[in-house]
Amino acid sequence: MLNFALIGAGRIGVSHASLIANHPRARLAAVIDADAKAAASLASRFSAATMNWAEALADPAIDAMLIASSTDTHAGFIEDAARAGKAILSEKPIDLSLDRIDRCGAVVTETKARLMVGFNRRFDPHIASLKARLDDEAIGRASQILIINRDAGAPPPEFLRRSGGIFRDMAIHDYDLACHLFGAAPVAVHAQGSALVDPGAASCGDYDTALTVLTMADGAQAMIANARCARFGFDFRLEVLGAKGVLRLDNPRETTLIEADAAGVRQAKPPQNFFARFETAFARQLDAFIDAIIAGHSPPSDFADGRTASAIAEAAAKSATTGTPILLDRKDGLIILKLQK
Amino acid sequence: MLNFALIGAGRIGVSHASLIANHPRARLAAVIDADAKAAASLASRFSAATMNWAEALADPAIDAMLIASSTDTHAGFIEDAARAGKAILSEKPIDLSLDRIDRCGAVVTETKARLMVGFNRRFDPHIASLKARLDDEAIGRASQILIINRDAGAPPPEFLRRSGGIFRDMAIHDYDLACHLFGAAPVAVHAQGSALVDPGAASCGDYDTALTVLTMADGAQAMIANARCARFGFDFRLEVLGAKGVLRLDNPRETTLIEADAAGVRQAKPPQNFFARFETAFARQLDAFIDAIIAGHSPPSDFADGRTASAIAEAAAKSATTGTPILLDRKDGLIILKLQK
Amino acid sequence: MLNFALIGAGRIGVSHASLIANHPRARLAAVIDADAKAAASLASRFSAATMNWAEALADPAIDAMLIASSTDTHAGFIEDAARAGKAILSEKPIDLSLDRIDRCGAVVTETKARLMVGFNRRFDPHIASLKARLDDEAIGRASQILIINRDAGAPPPEFLRRSGGIFRDMAIHDYDLACHLFGAAPVAVHAQGSALVDPGAASCGDYDTALTVLTMADGAQAMIANARCARFGFDFRLEVLGAKGVLRLDNPRETTLIEADAAGVRQAKPPQNFFARFETAFARQLDAFIDAIIAGHSPPSDFADGRTASAIAEAAAKSATTGTPILLDRKDGLIILKLQK
Amino acid sequence: MLNFALIGAGRIGVSHASLIANHPRARLAAVIDADAKAAASLASRFSAATMNWAEALADPAIDAMLIASSTDTHAGFIEDAARAGKAILSEKPIDLSLDRIDRCGAVVTETKARLMVGFNRRFDPHIASLKARLDDEAIGRASQILIINRDAGAPPPEFLRRSGGIFRDMAIHDYDLACHLFGAAPVAVHAQGSALVDPGAASCGDYDTALTVLTMADGAQAMIANARCARFGFDFRLEVLGAKGVLRLDNPRETTLIEADAAGVRQAKPPQNFFARFETAFARQLDAFIDAIIAGHSPPSDFADGRTASAIAEAAAKSATTGTPILLDRKDGLIILKLQK
Repeated sequence: MLNFALIGAGRIGVSHASLIANHPRARLAAVIDADAKAAASLASRFSAATMNWAEALADPAIDAMLIASSTDTHAGFIEDAARAGKAILSEKPIDLSLDRIDRCGAVVTETKARLMVGFNRRFDPHIASLKARLDDEAIGRASQILIINRDAGAPPPEFLRRSGGIFRDMAIHDYDLACHLFGAAPVAVHAQGSALVDPGAASCGDYDTALTVLTMADGAQAMIANARCARFGFDFRLEVLGAKGVLRLDNPRETTLIEADAAGVRQAKPPQNFFARFETAFARQLDAFIDAIIAGHSPPSDFADGRTASAIAEAAAKSATTGTPILLDRKDGLIILKLQK
Repeated sequence: MLNFALIGAGRIGVSHASLIANHPRARLAAVIDADAKAAASLASRFSAATMNWAEALADPAIDAMLIASSTDTHAGFIEDAARAGKAILSEKPIDLSLDRIDRCGAVVTETKARLMVGFNRRFDPHIASLKARLDDEAIGRASQILIINRDAGAPPPEFLRRSGGIFRDMAIHDYDLACHLFGAAPVAVHAQGSALVDPGAASCGDYDTALTVLTMADGAQAMIANARCARFGFDFRLEVLGAKGVLRLDNPRETTLIEADAAGVRQAKPPQNFFARFETAFARQLDAFIDAIIAGHSPPSDFADGRTASAIAEAAAKSATTGTPILLDRKDGLIILKLQK
Repeated sequence: MLNFALIGAGRIGVSHASLIANHPRARLAAVIDADAKAAASLASRFSAATMNWAEALADPAIDAMLIASSTDTHAGFIEDAARAGKAILSEKPIDLSLDRIDRCGAVVTETKARLMVGFNRRFDPHIASLKARLDDEAIGRASQILIINRDAGAPPPEFLRRSGGIFRDMAIHDYDLACHLFGAAPVAVHAQGSALVDPGAASCGDYDTALTVLTMADGAQAMIANARCARFGFDFRLEVLGAKGVLRLDNPRETTLIEADAAGVRQAKPPQNFFARFETAFARQLDAFIDAIIAGHSPPSDFADGRTASAIAEAAAKSATTGTPILLDRKDGLIILKLQK
Repeated sequence: MLNFALIGAGRIGVSHASLIANHPRARLAAVIDADAKAAASLASRFSAATMNWAEALADPAIDAMLIASSTDTHAGFIEDAARAGKAILSEKPIDLSLDRIDRCGAVVTETKARLMVGFNRRFDPHIASLKARLDDEAIGRASQILIINRDAGAPPPEFLRRSGGIFRDMAIHDYDLACHLFGAAPVAVHAQGSALVDPGAASCGDYDTALTVLTMADGAQAMIANARCARFGFDFRLEVLGAKGVLRLDNPRETTLIEADAAGVRQAKPPQNFFARFETAFARQLDAFIDAIIAGHSPPSDFADGRTASAIAEAAAKSATTGTPILLDRKDGLIILKLQK
């Protein structure tokens, strides 16, 4: 049984609370949020206590912290929890700045923290089944990966303004996924973005339509298409080409219903947002975290994974601004950006 | 909060136990089974007590009985629970004999029992979405319904021998579904069966391949295909034709993965058995039962529905034996069989 | 090179004319129609002559007759052509009456006529690929066949009145197909029909919604659903279940285009009528006829096939009227109907 | 009636010959090929004459030249035919060198030649239906286009060596298609290629796996994925995202057959090569050419289109070599490459 304190009682926090509360090997012990009302309401719904952060850190009955607060607080909370010896499951990204991430990383290393960064997609059953076939060498070595990841609409400008932009907020999942599938980080990143459909994106200096090309050391390639205007629902598709064949994931549909009449033939829409699409993935991610902590293993999708995805996002953002590909290198085991390709 | 006693710790009982235990408005209070070891093991897994049937009936803390024991015990347990004033959720069928069902019905009526018969398919989200569109008059009045319902393989002879045969055990779900979609019971039933693939079916005098045609009073038709040899998985499909269009449900697939290579293009299989296919339906069925009982409403899919499906199954079995359609009539509000069409 | 005379310059005749004219081993020599204007117009389009029937029979330059005139003239024209020693490709059915068919058959036998009855579906590439896999024993022996065959709308009453009814006009294709797939004729036929959507059908005493169940000697079953109201297009689907697996054909779509927006996800419609759907089948049927005649082989889908499908249609019509299954037997090698099952 | 001389009796020439011979408004008058045997064999098959190039140019009975010879001869034959006043349908590309193309263009302009460059995909019914919906503004302005275009296997090294490389030989179709869909040429091209699966590609200095990103003046983007190892067949898919929705084309399949058994669920493969996939497109392309020439209109997909696609291919090849995006500009109405972005 793992006792969790959850920090962050916003939309994603509510989902995590429910998953913890319904998990057979977990208990939601405490909810923490600067908004005391939100914390109390969520805590009471699952018979949890409310605490402040210092109390939770000090409470020996609390085994693990689930960090679902705003992005700019992740790194600090990770450091605190690491020093308090708590197991940590943090929402991505670790931070919007690679420098800040590296300072956080120093604490994680020093404290040998048991930390998992929430790249939930790795735990999606569809993606996991594709990865399993890839690992089985069903198609040989991956030579070309395509990821399409589009929201049904743009988030509000107040969200966009603090999100770090489409590459750090949205494409970061796809960067992690590409690294996960290739089993390696890229050596070059080329990206470009435009603000074509959402006035909010333009006003924030963000993009709503973006492409990223990742180049791997062995010449394999990934192409990632992001957008904020897939009006029919959350549009997430993936394919991996190898020398022997191809593995493809299409969008699931809400039901298998087909409706056909004189006006045409219609199928059910896909899930309408990432949370509906990755509901099972969030549950399995929690499961994997709990299993690893209880078994004393290091959790999958760790700090290094979180840092790599952020480094790629930083390179993509730079590439889109400068108009040139960004080469990546390693220094002391860490990925660094070289400007001129 | 509804406190359940579960009778029957077999395969389907285990599933019901887990659903009750995980339900936010239900508690698994007791498990009952002639096999004391099975009862104890299941009870301990969900922190429930073990009891015998008489104790459960007498226990005022128990609100509802979930009957998941063998078919020949359903009617008796329903009568006992009805007399004890418990809410009842019983697996189908009520009994294999229409006479026995009618005696049970007298008790249900007399005690005004709150009884739900577990036709889980009505609660499947795919089927529910089709029904909703039908009720919206998206295709006009239903004129022709096709149901394909096939198991991946045949059950063992010891199950078949006590199952009542393919019409009473398997097609009964489809009969209920056809009535549910049409909103009425048929006026004639024509069925035929063969034992073509499963030696067990032949040895038990049962069929493994069967067709049923239902005729409605208004001339609408339903065609039901059953079989025990859909080797690729549980094969359940449905379509409803109306004057304005058609509504179709295909099999869901375990994932959306497509794998393509020189050998061909393969998609993921459908769920492998009815329980995997209708997992969500079982959960929603329990939900609907709990909601109805707590709200004091009569539950959906009640005794009359259970009796109607059994009457159709009896007619189908008779039709398959005699080689002629069986006309149905009503007497005192109950469906009766007329032999000669 | 095979020289054809075409009798019948109606809609289906125009299609046959075009196929003959474009065939590398055929020539359209003559067009014959009581409507001289229609004959002349069609003949001039493909540089053919116009003739009357007697002239065509007498013309030694004409090798083959393609009979695409109205149904009630088929048998007479077949007899004439048989006696004149012409090869014959006739549209189905041979006649609406089994007695008339048998008299025609006597002439065909006596003259050893090279006759093919146009069950074009056997030549559809989709169906042919399914049949090939069935013959490869990909799924074992066929135990259950389902055929869905629905027009997008009802033909005009003047057509219906002379069509012989939905079983003889429409389902006859499916009866032939079931026999073709099973490699045998059924031993019993149960059918029922209703007039639910088309006032024209009701006024003609015809049905617009029909089901037929065929029973084979070995217990295998076929279930055929017909209707005249598949508003989205011509709806023709087929599946064959065997002990080892299933073979399914879905509707082709006009294009693979998917259009998705806030209103939903739409796919292209299937072909809108049987001719668009079976365009390739008509061409391959002609090909098979020409190949057989040139090679001196007897053509596939011969008089006996045509007679069998008509006998099943007659049984179906009788079953729908009497409400009882019709048993089929053989006498002198011919299928006969026994009323009481 | 348009009389054609066909130059080039190779594989693609044979296809063009057959299409011309079967076209109601065309006649194959002459076949020309340096390989006299190949020319004679093809000519006799369609009752055409054989000629040499000079004879064909001089023959007033010949209206149009179909140029299906090797790529390095296209520009010269176009110039000759233009000067002889013949209508011209030439296979793509005009030449592998942009300089040579421009010299050819001068002749085309000076002679006002009626020239069509064979970008057959524009005439594919699937693509045409997508384009029609785009023109209907079904999804608003196109913001992101994805094209996947992969051969089932690599051509032999002797072909690759003279092909101009994957960008000029294969992706050129996709560049034309992107321009056709956007209605404009890009302002920047970024491409990269690897030789990962085909030893032949590596040995020729060519790539077998390539990505191209096109940037439009308004910020819209196209992403093109090419490869030579889609082992299951010719893999051509396309999607266009707009502010209001998305239009997608999936691969057609050879039949709609689904085969399902214990080993899995299999669907039919797509067409195995570009010619099988675009058979109808080739026919409709010829149709469009003939219609335009007979009507005195300039044919669709003209010299300027051919030059634009070649300019993009040249930019892509340069980008893949230099590792930087290539900016495109216009000078005297022609697209020119600027190296440094």
